Amino acid sequence: MELLMHRRVALASALFVCFLLGPVAGDEGMYPITELSKLNLKAKGLKIDPASIYNPKGISLIEAIVNIGGCSASFVSNDGLILTNHHCVFSAVQAASTPERDYLTDGFLAATRADEVRARGMTAQITEQMRNVSADVLSAVRDGMEPIERSKAIEARIAELTKKAQAELPGKTVRISEMLAGQSYVMFISTTYRDVRLAYVPPRSIGEFGGEDDNWVWPRHTGDFSFIRAYTGPDGKPADHAPANVPYHPRRFLKVNPNGVNEGDFIFILGYPGRTYRHQTSYYLAYEEQYRMPYIADLNAWRISTMEELGRPDRAVALKFDARVKTLANTMKNYRGKLAGMSRLRLVEQRRQEEAGLQKYIDADPQRRAIYGTVLEQTRKIYDEMSSRARYELVLDSLAQVPTSLPASASQSVSTLVRLATIVVESGAEKVKPSAASLADFHEPAERLFFKKVITLAATLPEGQRIKAVDTALRRDYSDENINRYVDEVFAKTVLRTPEGLASALGKTPAELSKLGDPLIALAADLLPLQQELRDVRARRSAELSKLSALLVDVKQKYLQKDFIPDANSTLRLTYGRVRGYSPADATYLSPITTLTGVMQKTRDDYPYATPQIVRDLYQAKDFGRYRLPKINDLPVAVLYDADTTGGNSGSPLMNAKGELVGVNFDRAWGATINDYAWNEAYSRSIAVDIRYVLWLTEKMGKAAFLLQEMGVK
Amino acid sequence: MELLMHRRVALASALFVCFLLGPVAGDEGMYPITELSKLNLKAKGLKIDPASIYNPKGISLIEAIVNIGGCSASFVSNDGLILTNHHCVFSAVQAASTPERDYLTDGFLAATRADEVRARGMTAQITEQMRNVSADVLSAVRDGMEPIERSKAIEARIAELTKKAQAELPGKTVRISEMLAGQSYVMFISTTYRDVRLAYVPPRSIGEFGGEDDNWVWPRHTGDFSFIRAYTGPDGKPADHAPANVPYHPRRFLKVNPNGVNEGDFIFILGYPGRTYRHQTSYYLAYEEQYRMPYIADLNAWRISTMEELGRPDRAVALKFDARVKTLANTMKNYRGKLAGMSRLRLVEQRRQEEAGLQKYIDADPQRRAIYGTVLEQTRKIYDEMSSRARYELVLDSLAQVPTSLPASASQSVSTLVRLATIVVESGAEKVKPSAASLADFHEPAERLFFKKVITLAATLPEGQRIKAVDTALRRDYSDENINRYVDEVFAKTVLRTPEGLASALGKTPAELSKLGDPLIALAADLLPLQQELRDVRARRSAELSKLSALLVDVKQKYLQKDFIPDANSTLRLTYGRVRGYSPADATYLSPITTLTGVMQKTRDDYPYATPQIVRDLYQAKDFGRYRLPKINDLPVAVLYDADTTGGNSGSPLMNAKGELVGVNFDRAWGATINDYAWNEAYSRSIAVDIRYVLWLTEKMGKAAFLLQEMGVK
Repeated sequence: MELLMHRRVALASALFVCFLLGPVAGDEGMYPITELSKLNLKAKGLKIDPASIYNPKGISLIEAIVNIGGCSASFVSNDGLILTNHHCVFSAVQAASTPERDYLTDGFLAATRADEVRARGMTAQITEQMRNVSADVLSAVRDGMEPIERSKAIEARIAELTKKAQAELPGKTVRISEMLAGQSYVMFISTTYRDVRLAYVPPRSIGEFGGEDDNWVWPRHTGDFSFIRAYTGPDGKPADHAPANVPYHPRRFLKVNPNGVNEGDFIFILGYPGRTYRHQTSYYLAYEEQYRMPYIADLNAWRISTMEELGRPDRAVALKFDARVKTLANTMKNYRGKLAGMSRLRLVEQRRQEEAGLQKYIDADPQRRAIYGTVLEQTRKIYDEMSSRARYELVLDSLAQVPTSLPASASQSVSTLVRLATIVVESGAEKVKPSAASLADFHEPAERLFFKKVITLAATLPEGQRIKAVDTALRRDYSDENINRYVDEVFAKTVLRTPEGLASALGKTPAELSKLGDPLIALAADLLPLQQELRDVRARRSAELSKLSALLVDVKQKYLQKDFIPDANSTLRLTYGRVRGYSPADATYLSPITTLTGVMQKTRDDYPYATPQIVRDLYQAKDFGRYRLPKINDLPVAVLYDADTTGGNSGSPLMNAKGELVGVNFDRAWGATINDYAWNEAYSRSIAVDIRYVLWLTEKMGKAAFLLQEMGVK
Repeated sequence: MELLMHRRVALASALFVCFLLGPVAGDEGMYPITELSKLNLKAKGLKIDPASIYNPKGISLIEAIVNIGGCSASFVSNDGLILTNHHCVFSAVQAASTPERDYLTDGFLAATRADEVRARGMTAQITEQMRNVSADVLSAVRDGMEPIERSKAIEARIAELTKKAQAELPGKTVRISEMLAGQSYVMFISTTYRDVRLAYVPPRSIGEFGGEDDNWVWPRHTGDFSFIRAYTGPDGKPADHAPANVPYHPRRFLKVNPNGVNEGDFIFILGYPGRTYRHQTSYYLAYEEQYRMPYIADLNAWRISTMEELGRPDRAVALKFDARVKTLANTMKNYRGKLAGMSRLRLVEQRRQEEAGLQKYIDADPQRRAIYGTVLEQTRKIYDEMSSRARYELVLDSLAQVPTSLPASASQSVSTLVRLATIVVESGAEKVKPSAASLADFHEPAERLFFKKVITLAATLPEGQRIKAVDTALRRDYSDENINRYVDEVFAKTVLRTPEGLASALGKTPAELSKLGDPLIALAADLLPLQQELRDVRARRSAELSKLSALLVDVKQKYLQKDFIPDANSTLRLTYGRVRGYSPADATYLSPITTLTGVMQKTRDDYPYATPQIVRDLYQAKDFGRYRLPKINDLPVAVLYDADTTGGNSGSPLMNAKGELVGVNFDRAWGATINDYAWNEAYSRSIAVDIRYVLWLTEKMGKAAFLLQEMGVK
């Protein structure tokens, strides 16, 4: 699923690399809204005025697009009704559920607006204005600045500009995003509505049909949609959740077209794609392929199988691990898809050849050579250094990462306990509080296995990449017996296994802590300086790469004599394409629209394929209503298209040539995850739930015809 | 892969149930060669005289078809050259290999005939004559015989007729097979050549490309072929392996057509399909679906993962388990395919409805009712009884099965040790020797886990299905602690863990054995009477079902007013169809010819996808020779068609409308394994390696153009 994947590697956040925009690559690209005029969308198939999508001087389609935090969504009625993915509201539905009212399992329908329940943790943000502030930002940079100094200057200027704008625009959210590294910066001005409520959520057996098995898979049969609603204070302004609040009236909402789309139709998508790494250097790709992704994918696989093993005899334990397993599996499958794609496309090799061409071009002119001559070489050196200690850094991340605002489930830290100990050690100085999630996830038998795993990983690091803190803890005896002894000792003695012990340790000074004689706290104290060193190293790398990246963008634009458009960076983008099948492998063709017959083929009596009885009955009766595909007497379920999406695009409206909503984007095909690194016409495919399935389920299963009426679907 | 799967359930061998032959089902059926005249093959697409396939009075195509024991094959030259599957010669290649000459890994090519090495354990049998002996066999049956008496009378008459014919036909192999239960019997007269040698075997990376991952999978890219050669004594008669032997000159060999086939082409196959269960009763199918297949599939899964776990840190151990894991996985995947198919097609339910119709037909006529009225009811009762103690019988089989001629790898016994103990206990009376394979497979840590597994399975049987011998051994304490204690005791005390101990125990009388005080031998002694009881129960069931089955065939033929043709029973059969893709699932279409590009897509650096460098280079150079598919500039690799095959058809020649060889059959698509129970036009697909891939590899990779010359391919 296209949840925004949180990347903990600091370097990523500073790197924006870009890709080629040319007339041939008609279906490639996540275009910034401000660049739409360059696109000639009419020639591609759009049947409305491109200015009606974004018009800086008036109301346009983009005001119907909602950022709900890690996901996208859209308004579908004048009363603030929002259509997005089931997986985007999953946590809110979980939070609203109790053992007596299990909305996740049974689904949720508010019979009247008064029955709509709060979607905890969710907000609805609408981007209203975009301002190019590149000149303002870059005025902070002076020639001759060291990379790290330059980065800091840019950061400071961005903070200053943001603060100023924020003061001028009370009630608005202001954010400045780097679009092209060291080149262009855009200020996004938006409004954030804080009262969001659940209107209709299908049961999990529909909204999550196929579960982890089908995740990143086409053909797909998941009814991954939900309806929520944005509320404002009685004055129409953003307000905290309150009974007196009223539905928000958006300036624009999307027209829902109940006729859906057909193979070959032009479609486009507006949303908030998170992060792409197109045209990164071959050095970056090689590092990802050789070190980071296989390490994380393998470790996640181990963590998942360990948690599954522990959960098998005990349903309560399995439930405790559920969300964590889901997140780990999502990342694992994404990485394995990418690794397969990189190997299949020989991506590193391909990128190397492109860079050889670029270097030749640079070297051909003495002036170019003076400016750009060593950019690639310097980049290579940074990645060489990273590679030379890659396992050290990855294992250190697995041991513990602080500070972190992420729930334990999304963290790279394998051992909750070491993470807690690290927080405890830092708490004396910084008063960091461990999040509730860290404690909720705690399960001693699992924690013991996790702890042993990271200690073993550290114990088997090659000479020269050893983690000193672990060497000290193990007294340089790396035998399995000694590791077992050490793990036993830690679990026998640490105070951190219980909430009380944890509470008592928090906020103590280092001296007080060391008096406890707690072996886990001792380990964390020894790890802290190593982690600080790693943070510093990464900040330095990041600043250097940021500067090199800016130079690279510069010279590549000259070399290719083409415009660049920025990588995805969680800002509003448009992508377009056609409804289109693909051939993922030899002798295999997958067509672009799945059917309810396919749902029935997968249906079994247990999770994740347990279709509700009412849907089975409706299928048996062939009661497809107005949504029937007459040629095959079937109901469309999901749609595939060659638009260019990534994590964060979940919940984005799929629109037809007239800008009418015909589906809700929620995933990519497995082979397409490679498009985070390189767009590939043959493999890059995204997946939406078909609006016809959404409407049919809402009407026939959910008995919520009134929502269809509200959307103007007759 | 289509190895003949050995079924240990005695009942199966006595049950031949049949299926409908009608003009609509044009592509269904494994036709006995003697029935071909009923088929009108010309109308289906055959372009040669059907009499040239089988002519009782002259030389015909069937004399080019070879039964090599569990697999099929065909002569492709006048000098006894035989083309079959790589997996059919696997054991012989393994036996011919040494650590210095690893023919499995590197492949094998005999540069001259003198270099051809013995294919140990292999024989080549050619069916020459078929005689209908139904009247002769059935003359042994008298009215009023009890089922078991009737079965014994038929068995005795078959033995007598076989012995007589054998005496009249020295040098020939005579076998009488039941074709339709209680109705028809055919005598097959054949010649068996005992000197078979390896001529050309591709490396395992080609012949087993895809390994277990791809087994039962389409699209497929396995080069599953090998060339062997039959030899005779200098007098042209069958002879044991000897240097003076000369190549056999078959009376007929197949013409190899290097142009292959195209989508839609008519094809047919001659071979020795092992066993099908079409039109078995719903009771049989329900038993298979609910009890036997899930039990075996789950147990195999456990055995495989246990062996893989043990083999991970130790390559030697992994190799020891290799063949066993392969066999277990093959069966597991086959069963899971069948279970999925049964559930998808609701096969039991479907069969129940057919039977309801049949019962109505029977009941409509008093005379019919008198003869057939209770046939279904009686059958149901037998399966009810089987089901009521299904878990008991299955676990008893898992504990130990004797006597057995099967290698441990194919046995349902989980614990080698209990099996050995059972053999030891029986050896006093019967002088049974444990096979070398039983000892070779022995690995104490694995054996300890296996033993604990079967004891635990027995300990958790429901009340009323308990195994007394295990109850006694555990003294009715079924706790995990007690099981561990018992396992420890057995392994501490038994003499059977070592070859010496085993040898010393063999042949001892029961009294001598009991003096040893060996807990394992005590368990085996207690198990023996239970196993004897089970054998007796099964013989009784089998006889009853055999009689009921004959009546069922009778009345079904009347009811449907159609001819029946017999289920597969390892005798020579013809099946035909067309080269044809299929849609295994919603929105998915698989086309019927794969390519070398597909091989490259799957190629990695490690087993089972490690394509040899020379093939990679030839692909890079697009050096496809005369075998190139011009439209896509690619090389065909495997072919899919809707003919009806099963285990035993491996190695069968795939022939075009002119009877020319265009491929070598080796597998079915996963979804097609259900055709053992019910043919399904939409799912039943078989797989051959394309002759163009065979010839291209033999010529370009194997550098064995002389073999192409021998086959007359220019």
